[in-house]
Amino acid sequence: MTDDPRPLRRDVARNRQSLVDAARSAFTDHGLQAPLEPIAVAAGLGNATLYRHFPTRASLWEAVLTEPMQEVLDLVERCLELSATDPWAGFATFVRETASIEARRTGFSELMTTDYREAPGLLALRVAVQDGIDGLFAAGQAAGVVRSDAALADVAVLQLSIAETIRTFGRVAPTAYGRWVDLVLDGFRAPGVPRTPLSGPPLRGDQVRRAMAERHRPSRQKA
Amino acid sequence: MTDDPRPLRRDVARNRQSLVDAARSAFTDHGLQAPLEPIAVAAGLGNATLYRHFPTRASLWEAVLTEPMQEVLDLVERCLELSATDPWAGFATFVRETASIEARRTGFSELMTTDYREAPGLLALRVAVQDGIDGLFAAGQAAGVVRSDAALADVAVLQLSIAETIRTFGRVAPTAYGRWVDLVLDGFRAPGVPRTPLSGPPLRGDQVRRAMAERHRPSRQKA
Repeated sequence: MTDDPRPLRRDVARNRQSLVDAARSAFTDHGLQAPLEPIAVAAGLGNATLYRHFPTRASLWEAVLTEPMQEVLDLVERCLELSATDPWAGFATFVRETASIEARRTGFSELMTTDYREAPGLLALRVAVQDGIDGLFAAGQAAGVVRSDAALADVAVLQLSIAETIRTFGRVAPTAYGRWVDLVLDGFRAPGVPRTPLSGPPLRGDQVRRAMAERHRPSRQKA
Repeated sequence: MTDDPRPLRRDVARNRQSLVDAARSAFTDHGLQAPLEPIAVAAGLGNATLYRHFPTRASLWEAVLTEPMQEVLDLVERCLELSATDPWAGFATFVRETASIEARRTGFSELMTTDYREAPGLLALRVAVQDGIDGLFAAGQAAGVVRSDAALADVAVLQLSIAETIRTFGRVAPTAYGRWVDLVLDGFRAPGVPRTPLSGPPLRGDQVRRAMAERHRPSRQKA
């Protein structure tokens, strides 16, 4: 490594990567408002180095969250393509796939709902995602497969409700959310549009009871 | 009041009532696992008096929760009567009314899901409530108005999901849950059974955004 002509620059890049990795981990574990000092500590660096690389929390968000947000935008765009031939599949696939991301990655719904006024790159990506969701929903209603009396705001409630339900049941039944998503999606289907079978078996009684018991533990961490 | 022949007994009854009132308030604000010592303080009494009246947390639960649990049982029984002539109305009214209790009284879902092994009176009431829900659900399926591929465990998920959604949106839109309950209930309806109009308007964009912002406040209290 001593033959590198720019050893200092390499240190800088390595430090930056360590900070991004530590921030990603902290945001996943403690949410996007996680304190910054432990991030510097976890990266093995001082606060001064952290602030030199990322003078604001928003700049750290941009470094960590742009890639996952871009993935959501890619998903929306795939669903819009699908929607052109099958409007219900376009809308429902987006809801199902975002539920699946939520289940794998705690804090996904926070990614989609945080105030990004200080992070314009993320804000622009999220506006594009939201435009895509509007398009999926409007196409579904225009084709008569999404009920005409539902509104776009109901989709926001749908997605947050799914996120909360995954948080409640995810630990005891990691894959059970799919069946629940199918059930609530059928509430959004226009009447008369044929349903598809619910995915997966219902929860067992002991899973319901364990999820309820975990819900009341005072120490339950916010996802 | 000095003509009362049993002044000591009256003190005892008054102390007990103060403890029950303080406990009700603490359980509402901090959940059913709220620490007991502040309850004695709030009642203006010592710990010794609290423990003389209520030697266990479960005995305090019985004193505070028997009445609301009995009200839920009364509700189930009214819905079972309704179910005999209109099975969908019986099932849906129970879900809607419990959502309405949840919205008025934070912690209702905790009332329905806490482990009452040490509180046999409450346990018996809840078993009776659960039997009633089973009856409502089975009658709906037998009549072909509740979808045949739904299971009783899905109703437990439905109710917890509604509770979490009310917790997320209740502060910014206290009455909006009714529309959401209608939407998810339609997911439980058998195909081909006519729907009723959704109650109330959809959320406004600013309500969705405010609910999302509140959701991420690190200090958000557990309901």
